Amino acid sequence: MRISALAAEAGLPIATVKFYLREGLLHPGVATSATQATYDDSHLRRLRVIRALTGPVGLSVQQTRMILGLIDDPGDDLYATLGRAVGALPPTVDTRAASDDDPDPFPRARAALEALGQVYDPSFAAVAQLEAALEAVDAAGMPISDDRLLEYGRHLREMAVYDLERMPPEPNAAVEYTVLGTALYEPVLLALRRLAHQDVASRRDLGA
Amino acid sequence: MRISALAAEAGLPIATVKFYLREGLLHPGVATSATQATYDDSHLRRLRVIRALTGPVGLSVQQTRMILGLIDDPGDDLYATLGRAVGALPPTVDTRAASDDDPDPFPRARAALEALGQVYDPSFAAVAQLEAALEAVDAAGMPISDDRLLEYGRHLREMAVYDLERMPPEPNAAVEYTVLGTALYEPVLLALRRLAHQDVASRRDLGA
Repeated sequence: MRISALAAEAGLPIATVKFYLREGLLHPGVATSATQATYDDSHLRRLRVIRALTGPVGLSVQQTRMILGLIDDPGDDLYATLGRAVGALPPTVDTRAASDDDPDPFPRARAALEALGQVYDPSFAAVAQLEAALEAVDAAGMPISDDRLLEYGRHLREMAVYDLERMPPEPNAAVEYTVLGTALYEPVLLALRRLAHQDVASRRDLGA
Repeated sequence: MRISALAAEAGLPIATVKFYLREGLLHPGVATSATQATYDDSHLRRLRVIRALTGPVGLSVQQTRMILGLIDDPGDDLYATLGRAVGALPPTVDTRAASDDDPDPFPRARAALEALGQVYDPSFAAVAQLEAALEAVDAAGMPISDDRLLEYGRHLREMAVYDLERMPPEPNAAVEYTVLGTALYEPVLLALRRLAHQDVASRRDLGA
């Protein structure tokens, strides 16, 4: 299809599609003349991913280009690539390695992962993210008990097994699935959690 | 204790404590002279809640005052009050009632809740929140299958039962528990989910 048809199909102005081409977010079409090119479903699919990352997820063009680069070239170590891709998603956190000055930079996250029997890798962005979240919880005087941690952790791990079992085997698709399944499914989960609370509460006598 | 001791205990400048008193977020102490008052643990506890809501949760002073009002005066219908309190937390969504013009404003959220067998109340903010999240998911070409919805929903509902069983019976405490357990535990859950993915992935052969 021509660029006008691609833009119409994606529901975008042609200028926006041209901008993504210029910025290298969208791969070039196949040239059919000196001034025209033809585009296919791979371009439409990529436009959807670009729109998700720059829209609801809120990434800059530069951050989006970095993540698209990992989708296009996942390299040999898929595990490390998935970690880098997820680590590039919001929220922005202050990752730091253990050092002589600060041998245990994430004590709350470390303790929680040890209690859960899960891998602890301080270079992973979600460790710093968990530390910040647990700091806020402690500061508010609402610490998460071990019992609650194990209850939450058990359910989240079962959901993670479900997600990983459905990860496409092909590496490019696996990175895309992980990025979108993290960034776009998280808001769904939070809304569903609030609605689950509402549902459970509605079936109890809350002393009206 | 005197205001200086209260501020020191809370780790805040005295001017900040005075600001919260002036804005009506913090209840007055007991006057001991024309210019002095004494404060107790209830003030310290309240300062922690104020700091959580204006800090990590990101509410304005006005939004914080509204939520503190619900904690202080939950009224007779605790279920409705919990809904209002959670609805006042981020993210901000465009709630709207069904009307003649728009009889089904949240079709995706309605269908999801029907599939889960959960209560559907379009006036509840999390319904609009779920609709927006599902719209983004669909636009990105990553729709959530019914099977995935039921899997996520089952776990989140079990976690909600756990949370509700531990809700304090006293209404003021119940509202505070619900507000902080929503706003502060959500970031913990998202970090734990990413770490669960990492843990499950680390135990698989991802073709390194």
